Amino acid sequence: MNKEIHLVKRPEAAPTSEHIQIVEGETPEPKQGEVLVKLLYVSVDPYMRGRMNDTKSYIAPFALNEPMAGGAVAEVVRSEADALQEGDIVTGMLPWKEHSVSQADQLRKIDPSLGPITYSLGILGMPGLTAYFGLMDIGQPKEGETIVVSGAAGAVGSAVVQLGKIAGCRVVGIAGSDEKTSYLKETLEIDETINYKTENVSDALQKACPDGIDVYFDNVGGDISDAVYPLLNKFARIAQCGAIASYNVPNDQGPRMQMHLIKSSALIKGFTVGDYQDRFSEGFQYLSKSLQEGKLSYEETISEGFESIPDAFFGLFTGENLGKQLVKVNEPSQS
Amino acid sequence: MNKEIHLVKRPEAAPTSEHIQIVEGETPEPKQGEVLVKLLYVSVDPYMRGRMNDTKSYIAPFALNEPMAGGAVAEVVRSEADALQEGDIVTGMLPWKEHSVSQADQLRKIDPSLGPITYSLGILGMPGLTAYFGLMDIGQPKEGETIVVSGAAGAVGSAVVQLGKIAGCRVVGIAGSDEKTSYLKETLEIDETINYKTENVSDALQKACPDGIDVYFDNVGGDISDAVYPLLNKFARIAQCGAIASYNVPNDQGPRMQMHLIKSSALIKGFTVGDYQDRFSEGFQYLSKSLQEGKLSYEETISEGFESIPDAFFGLFTGENLGKQLVKVNEPSQS
Repeated sequence: MNKEIHLVKRPEAAPTSEHIQIVEGETPEPKQGEVLVKLLYVSVDPYMRGRMNDTKSYIAPFALNEPMAGGAVAEVVRSEADALQEGDIVTGMLPWKEHSVSQADQLRKIDPSLGPITYSLGILGMPGLTAYFGLMDIGQPKEGETIVVSGAAGAVGSAVVQLGKIAGCRVVGIAGSDEKTSYLKETLEIDETINYKTENVSDALQKACPDGIDVYFDNVGGDISDAVYPLLNKFARIAQCGAIASYNVPNDQGPRMQMHLIKSSALIKGFTVGDYQDRFSEGFQYLSKSLQEGKLSYEETISEGFESIPDAFFGLFTGENLGKQLVKVNEPSQS
Repeated sequence: MNKEIHLVKRPEAAPTSEHIQIVEGETPEPKQGEVLVKLLYVSVDPYMRGRMNDTKSYIAPFALNEPMAGGAVAEVVRSEADALQEGDIVTGMLPWKEHSVSQADQLRKIDPSLGPITYSLGILGMPGLTAYFGLMDIGQPKEGETIVVSGAAGAVGSAVVQLGKIAGCRVVGIAGSDEKTSYLKETLEIDETINYKTENVSDALQKACPDGIDVYFDNVGGDISDAVYPLLNKFARIAQCGAIASYNVPNDQGPRMQMHLIKSSALIKGFTVGDYQDRFSEGFQYLSKSLQEGKLSYEETISEGFESIPDAFFGLFTGENLGKQLVKVNEPSQS
């Protein structure tokens, strides 16, 4: 039998054990082009809470009495696809099932020589690549410049902060709790932090950026970005990665910002990591090298066992875990 | 004696002869680094009306009982600067005085081989270069793409429209009167026009751009731009040249647009023509060649005589002159 974790009731507030149930199902059979995989690690993330609601968002809701799903690392145990073979370690979006079937082309094979396989869910995965390409290709940081990062303690933001330091820049991080700003200061050795929940962001930015802002890596949009635009230096670059402040606000209004762009001859470029598909190996190499040289720090908290997935997920909303929260479900066969 | 045109009274509505007076003054003497110039042509432009008000704007007001000023072509009659010599034809911002003194480094020497010297006030001057660099460097139009131009009948916009056609694109122009849209259709052979004063811009854009928008050359900002953002194609480019809709609106608010940029991986780049100082000769060569090959059309209306400057200026607000309105004050000595 094959254990699965289902959403059985939609939560009103924080998710608890009444909303999730571990059930047993059949082990599925792969068809042509598909593989059967065994779950090794799953990532539990705050955004999943949104998928438990039955409301329209940028990502579809989970169905009731069906498995939840998320980023995961798995091992191919049977392949009906040419691109993958038994024993391959892969990553992708997978249902929370001990064994599941997936289209081979929806999975990415992991190169274990780059770093621990779990890193493919973070610094050596989409969040790390997002940070790398947004900062390097759009932000183009130069030594001595000032970089501002919103959502600085998140999976993408914390990588941007460190890549900015590697590039020799002054880095200012904006985040939403004192725990997060402490993490930025103590672990990531950022230059300045701003807690947007307790500080006036505009005043704090002016103080933290006496020489203006050259690069803005924006995960949030909204009034935090409104406060950044007037401080842009000539030829500033903005990597527009997210706009979470607007996602759930229909017709979100704010000050028009075109004049700031003209005044500073600044650039804003929206992007998603998929835009850089052709250059992923460049990004992986850079991130892997930086990790091996100790220039990049990456934190994980790893719980053990398939049955502990719900508690690890609930803990996101009560604890103050920093770094990536993972659950180890199985060892890879070959290790 | 040296004739000058002074602002003597600030108009409430349209400027008339009661607001402007021709007076006589001394011919000034150039000091070290300066030149004495004789006015050949002046450009009269609608934006000058704003400088007649005593209100803060993006450009300082004219002083009462002092000469008005604007873009002009002049001839150096005496030089105390190494960079210029007697007989040189120059362009720059000059007071409306038959003879005036200017810092040599505030003037640009015209190369008469590029085209008529009056063109240095338009297509072979800052408006032409603004169109060229904004469209070519930021917009990067590719054959078959759709370009939308706001302020399409203006000095910059009408050049952008034509450069877009030369690049093999479908060009859609937005302007504020039927005279302007007729000019765009009949003289510039644009593909589609939208009169933003009589049409719903959002509906009209959807109809005019069935394949979406690849390049947006934006002279205006405001709600015209709000209507463009949702129609951007993947990897669209926006050259942010002006935002005239916001210039006189303190704290102008509108829909936040970061999500559109992310969705389409689009780019907005603010610029001013001075950003391209090092590449002016490239721009002049391209524009001159396009004019000589008949690919670029450029219209001027030229009045005669220093004393006709006020009437030519007043006429901007009553007539419906298209193309650049100039006044010829003197012949160059060498022609």
